[in-house]
Amino acid sequence: MGRPIVLLTDFGEGSIFVGEMKGVILKINPNAKIIDLTNNIRPQDVLQAAFLLKYSYRYFPKNTIFLCVVDPEVGSGRKPIAVKSRNYYFIGPDNGLIYPAALSDGIRMMVLLENKEYFLEKVSYTFQGRDIFAPVAAYISKGVSLKNFGSTLSSIKELVFEEPMFDQSGYLVCKVMYIDSFGNAVTNLEESKLPSLISDYNLTKVSEVCVLVNKKLYKVKMVKYYCEVEEGSPLALFNSFGLLELSINKGCASEYFSLSEGDVIKIRFCE
Amino acid sequence: MGRPIVLLTDFGEGSIFVGEMKGVILKINPNAKIIDLTNNIRPQDVLQAAFLLKYSYRYFPKNTIFLCVVDPEVGSGRKPIAVKSRNYYFIGPDNGLIYPAALSDGIRMMVLLENKEYFLEKVSYTFQGRDIFAPVAAYISKGVSLKNFGSTLSSIKELVFEEPMFDQSGYLVCKVMYIDSFGNAVTNLEESKLPSLISDYNLTKVSEVCVLVNKKLYKVKMVKYYCEVEEGSPLALFNSFGLLELSINKGCASEYFSLSEGDVIKIRFCE
Amino acid sequence: MGRPIVLLTDFGEGSIFVGEMKGVILKINPNAKIIDLTNNIRPQDVLQAAFLLKYSYRYFPKNTIFLCVVDPEVGSGRKPIAVKSRNYYFIGPDNGLIYPAALSDGIRMMVLLENKEYFLEKVSYTFQGRDIFAPVAAYISKGVSLKNFGSTLSSIKELVFEEPMFDQSGYLVCKVMYIDSFGNAVTNLEESKLPSLISDYNLTKVSEVCVLVNKKLYKVKMVKYYCEVEEGSPLALFNSFGLLELSINKGCASEYFSLSEGDVIKIRFCE
Repeated sequence: MGRPIVLLTDFGEGSIFVGEMKGVILKINPNAKIIDLTNNIRPQDVLQAAFLLKYSYRYFPKNTIFLCVVDPEVGSGRKPIAVKSRNYYFIGPDNGLIYPAALSDGIRMMVLLENKEYFLEKVSYTFQGRDIFAPVAAYISKGVSLKNFGSTLSSIKELVFEEPMFDQSGYLVCKVMYIDSFGNAVTNLEESKLPSLISDYNLTKVSEVCVLVNKKLYKVKMVKYYCEVEEGSPLALFNSFGLLELSINKGCASEYFSLSEGDVIKIRFCE
Repeated sequence: MGRPIVLLTDFGEGSIFVGEMKGVILKINPNAKIIDLTNNIRPQDVLQAAFLLKYSYRYFPKNTIFLCVVDPEVGSGRKPIAVKSRNYYFIGPDNGLIYPAALSDGIRMMVLLENKEYFLEKVSYTFQGRDIFAPVAAYISKGVSLKNFGSTLSSIKELVFEEPMFDQSGYLVCKVMYIDSFGNAVTNLEESKLPSLISDYNLTKVSEVCVLVNKKLYKVKMVKYYCEVEEGSPLALFNSFGLLELSINKGCASEYFSLSEGDVIKIRFCE
Repeated sequence: MGRPIVLLTDFGEGSIFVGEMKGVILKINPNAKIIDLTNNIRPQDVLQAAFLLKYSYRYFPKNTIFLCVVDPEVGSGRKPIAVKSRNYYFIGPDNGLIYPAALSDGIRMMVLLENKEYFLEKVSYTFQGRDIFAPVAAYISKGVSLKNFGSTLSSIKELVFEEPMFDQSGYLVCKVMYIDSFGNAVTNLEESKLPSLISDYNLTKVSEVCVLVNKKLYKVKMVKYYCEVEEGSPLALFNSFGLLELSINKGCASEYFSLSEGDVIKIRFCE
């Protein structure tokens, strides 16, 4: 069976291109275990892909190979790379996509994919996910060592998510990183920051959050799970990524608050 | 390989959350066979999920584990359960979702999932599909017996689909249970009821159906397959679930009749 | 493990019907390797399915079984067939879908699926993907020989894609065969025709393409990869199928040019 291969692309769920990549993998490793993390990344949105990868990779088995193809610069000089971290492998274009996840797990080795022996015979300029990244993933899944694919790199492109920061009026300025399929708005505020926030605000506990969105102020209950508030009511909670999320019980927060990915919201915790 | 695990969720096809659940399963059982039944259940629509599960489960191999996560009350007091039926396993929240399928196959054992040994170390309040249900499914797929997960239950939440009934004017009042991806409107009228209907209406055979939708009356041919009528013409047939379905040959019945799931339609069979 | 089974349907990604087919396959061959090529074929669009299959099949391992269900005439007299080509198996309705791919690989044997021993016990009139094609694919994946399924056929329904042709004004009349998930418009012009086109136009190289769409003339750069032009600018290239494609760097060509599948565009190459 070997190491599982996990796909993360912007090809769209059910894309023929995802199918072709799986075919290429199975040609090289007929026993490959292939799983889709998601192929629904917004087209060419490297930031969204990097965010979702960082908060998901840890749920996969040790030695999982993440095959990441959000690649707007395909065919240009951007480097095809593979990274070995403490527990995982990451393969994709050197555009920042795999940096946050690999860094968080602990980068061990970075390699430029240049050994054509491990590519498809004919490499296209427009679909290196199929012609370079998929075959390399398949060979790694069979146990080929990273150093066989090319020379080691001393650095890869860095991508760092914005951190929440206080503004002059004492609000915490956060960013909406992801709208999930229920319309929940996931921010960049990590639960691990909560203890220091509580002391910043001179609180003993947090039971309410003031949210400033598009110049409108909302007071929402801070809860643990969705149905703690009435149906249709807004709420805030730390979600399964460990991030602050705005939600509506049985509703759609992105509509309720008119929020999109990348939007800024200002937050203040209250007792 | 072990018992296959079949996913039924409302996370949306290509959801990162489905990916995470698969990762969790593979961590526990690297050889797990994971299949998506569908992840396209309408968000939080327990009824739709229960309906599709009931009419689909029988096509899977004996001992298949159905991992069902449509869970609007996640994190609250609603119970996480596992049910062993005559041929299958069903895992999910105790909200009615798995009741019709399990009942139809014959319930053998119902268990409260309470043994934390089989959960992820940290259980979130918002994603127990990943933190409780997926790991439990993985352990069952490896052969762990149901009684290890917690105490047995004497009952689970029941969910019963409405049955078609005659109204005073002799029409059979049916419900649209499902609109499929072609726009076909699947009702709650089972083919097995046809013989008794034929005698109710004093018919020897059925060749036409009068359908009352939103106060408009349609006469449609009763056929065996779609292209028995002209392109663009309406038809009724008993479909692959064994249920009465309104359809348009090479068209979209839900648009043609302005039908949505949950709508009531009145039906009368004619010779 | 045996031969992989690859699904190509118009049921919609995440369709319960795709799930049921996988269940049926696993009942017969618990070790089957099942891959989705795509289930997003436009409902009942046999031409789109045939096109995508023809340009994708070669990326799969030898002996892959393509289980193709775009079947508007299901239940009627249209034949259920299986075709063995030089390297692959193709299963589906005899409506032209599998013809271009099988022909391109080299047809070796064509069989009418008529041996009910290899069907589900009860065959519906509306879902033979589940009741005939899926079980047949499963048996082939286990090594059952094609001749066991029924009598050989001397011909199957042919489907031939239109070829680009010159019009009186020297423009090459092409057809948009496919709009991919990025909005790229893929035509029927194969890269292999380029050398003869270059001589037709008395060119030494091609650096620009004049495109006539809906009576509007566009001059677009002929490039190798997308980001060779400015963001938002149109371009033409030969894509990973080896076909001429109109695209917008980080944009959506189908919107930019108002193009749909089936549209005609006129093209002239310039130096």
